[in-house]
Amino acid sequence: MTQSFHPPQRILLGPGPSDVSPRVLEAMGRPTIGHLDPVFVAMMDELKCLLQYAFRTRNELTLPVSAPGSAGMETAFVNLVEPGDSVIVCQNGVFGLRMQENVERCGATAVIVKDEWGQPVDPNKLEDTLKAHPEARTVAFVQSETSTGVESDTRALVEIAHKHDCLAIVDAVTALGGTPVETDDWKIDAIYAGSQKCLSCTPGLAPVSFSEAAAERIRKRRHKVQSWFLDLNLVMAYWGQGAKRSYHHTAPINALYGLHEALVILEEEGIEHAWARHRRNHTALRDGLEAMGLRFLVEPAHRLPQLNAVRVPEGVDEAAVRAALLNDYGIEIGAGLGPLAGKIWRIGLMGHASNQRNVYILLSALEHILGRQGVALERGVALAAAQKRYAQDS
Amino acid sequence: MTQSFHPPQRILLGPGPSDVSPRVLEAMGRPTIGHLDPVFVAMMDELKCLLQYAFRTRNELTLPVSAPGSAGMETAFVNLVEPGDSVIVCQNGVFGLRMQENVERCGATAVIVKDEWGQPVDPNKLEDTLKAHPEARTVAFVQSETSTGVESDTRALVEIAHKHDCLAIVDAVTALGGTPVETDDWKIDAIYAGSQKCLSCTPGLAPVSFSEAAAERIRKRRHKVQSWFLDLNLVMAYWGQGAKRSYHHTAPINALYGLHEALVILEEEGIEHAWARHRRNHTALRDGLEAMGLRFLVEPAHRLPQLNAVRVPEGVDEAAVRAALLNDYGIEIGAGLGPLAGKIWRIGLMGHASNQRNVYILLSALEHILGRQGVALERGVALAAAQKRYAQDS
Repeated sequence: MTQSFHPPQRILLGPGPSDVSPRVLEAMGRPTIGHLDPVFVAMMDELKCLLQYAFRTRNELTLPVSAPGSAGMETAFVNLVEPGDSVIVCQNGVFGLRMQENVERCGATAVIVKDEWGQPVDPNKLEDTLKAHPEARTVAFVQSETSTGVESDTRALVEIAHKHDCLAIVDAVTALGGTPVETDDWKIDAIYAGSQKCLSCTPGLAPVSFSEAAAERIRKRRHKVQSWFLDLNLVMAYWGQGAKRSYHHTAPINALYGLHEALVILEEEGIEHAWARHRRNHTALRDGLEAMGLRFLVEPAHRLPQLNAVRVPEGVDEAAVRAALLNDYGIEIGAGLGPLAGKIWRIGLMGHASNQRNVYILLSALEHILGRQGVALERGVALAAAQKRYAQDS
Repeated sequence: MTQSFHPPQRILLGPGPSDVSPRVLEAMGRPTIGHLDPVFVAMMDELKCLLQYAFRTRNELTLPVSAPGSAGMETAFVNLVEPGDSVIVCQNGVFGLRMQENVERCGATAVIVKDEWGQPVDPNKLEDTLKAHPEARTVAFVQSETSTGVESDTRALVEIAHKHDCLAIVDAVTALGGTPVETDDWKIDAIYAGSQKCLSCTPGLAPVSFSEAAAERIRKRRHKVQSWFLDLNLVMAYWGQGAKRSYHHTAPINALYGLHEALVILEEEGIEHAWARHRRNHTALRDGLEAMGLRFLVEPAHRLPQLNAVRVPEGVDEAAVRAALLNDYGIEIGAGLGPLAGKIWRIGLMGHASNQRNVYILLSALEHILGRQGVALERGVALAAAQKRYAQDS
């Protein structure tokens, strides 16, 4: 007979999921009610407002897709791209590759703008590509590359897209709630995120928001959206107006309780304060890691404070370090992906997990484990550097 | 400032979600761990075995899709259907219509076998249609039509499909855990369900299972699966072998804790006992409803015990009855859909909610509310009929 599952208590400092607040976990355990219950429908309206707050938008078409971040990406592409379209896809990591997969599976052509992994998207390359491809209707890029910890300049890239009459699709999976995302101010047309990064909800939901221009394109499509489940024309009949709501699919009720609570917490803190907190903890972690002699993959100007990609020192067994962190300390950090596999660690300080305690625990544990692996370190130097930074920043 | 959301305590006797056991809710509130954590990966292996138990199958390709039942349906179609295919779709309710949408959005042709809403799929019509369409490669039908409460004969329909060299896709969303689903014995090729019906987990996950013949067709596809998120070739890299697991999308960790616990409960009870319980409570409810003079939409031989479609009596305001049940008693039942809107109620006795207490509460409340609406009823007659049935069956 199978036994109930009791997970260990981890500290989640990888690329996501991040630690979830007990308040969110508690909310998810509240009694399930129906997806058409008037009380639930009122909660959905609140949730929509809270998502507008997080995305900094007034977009009517703002809602959580009932599936993980990857489905948020797919929602953007299947709704905005039609067969035969040309889509400019900027690639500087795993998620740009996935965008290309999405475009091609929509029967469209992906024109690739390539940058090195660890570099931001180069606006000049995008501009040149758009000049060479006047037929393009859409530009897609990743604001916050979870595979490398690099941030691209969304405002600049969207501006270039618009100059060439393209709509801009922005991947903000790791950004939302941790670093500025200004959907309206930057004039983003379609944006998607994940629940399990800086919002610190459990994985499984993908907040999305679409501008009026994007909504207009969706309404005027020549072909039906290839996914019935992700067709926003249908989804909106459920998430749209309170009174006229009609059944599309059964919403993931308890997961939405959790996201609601996660966003209530964000609103209580104030989103600018959350951004500042992510930056403050990153800076202290950075000083500690650098005091240990570790080096970042990404140049300072383009680093995501919530996702620290750190080079594995020569001669260190990177998988053994991650295993020791997990087994001896219950701390999860992430490995490198693709060409960066074995070369970097990805240390997340996201959402609820971005706090001073975790910075100290991680630095102490890492120093101890690297020392055991024969890396010569002056004991306590990392912690001292982080403490000094906190003192300076307070 | 937005306040935390505290749902009321309902009794969910509609077409799903059904009441969720406190054990499942508690499991969902346990600490989130990483989707690549070895402890989580071991839980996934258990979950797969538990799903094989529920589906009565040894199919290797058995897993929970990270999205609601509708995405389970879409998983079956986008993986098994290729552009230009002919697919026979049996329609006798809402979900057959949705199957047609799925087929057409795959660039295939849907050949429709129509039966009245409330009737099961007619095997003779399917056979005739297959004779007229030798080009068809796939047959799809709904075993348990949630919009009407009718059960079709899966064993017979799959046999006919195979005789004509078609694979059979079966919708068992409302069936799984409530009425027999014999995936291997009936030689089903692709089957999907929902977490929120007779499994009594929260909504948001879609258990699926594919036969070796179906897996073979997926491996040999001429076109890529149009959905990246639902492409089983990719999903299996994550749900496949314990050691070689690779990242596809971030699994909905806490929702999977809940499904694991719901299936542990099913295994503890024993699935045949769960089927018998659903039948026993249905029979008592039926006797009570009939004693009140209410009539079923579906003939006895084809009724789903877990979903009772009851005709609204002449002159009764059906929406007012549902509102009174919800507001005065906290009981949710479902309305009719499509051509049955306003004509039936859908009373679910699913999973954790299929129990004697709920039968008594619903009959008492309904008798009281119908009496207020002027339906002449001898007081207590419904309850007495149900009690008598329980006494006979015990």
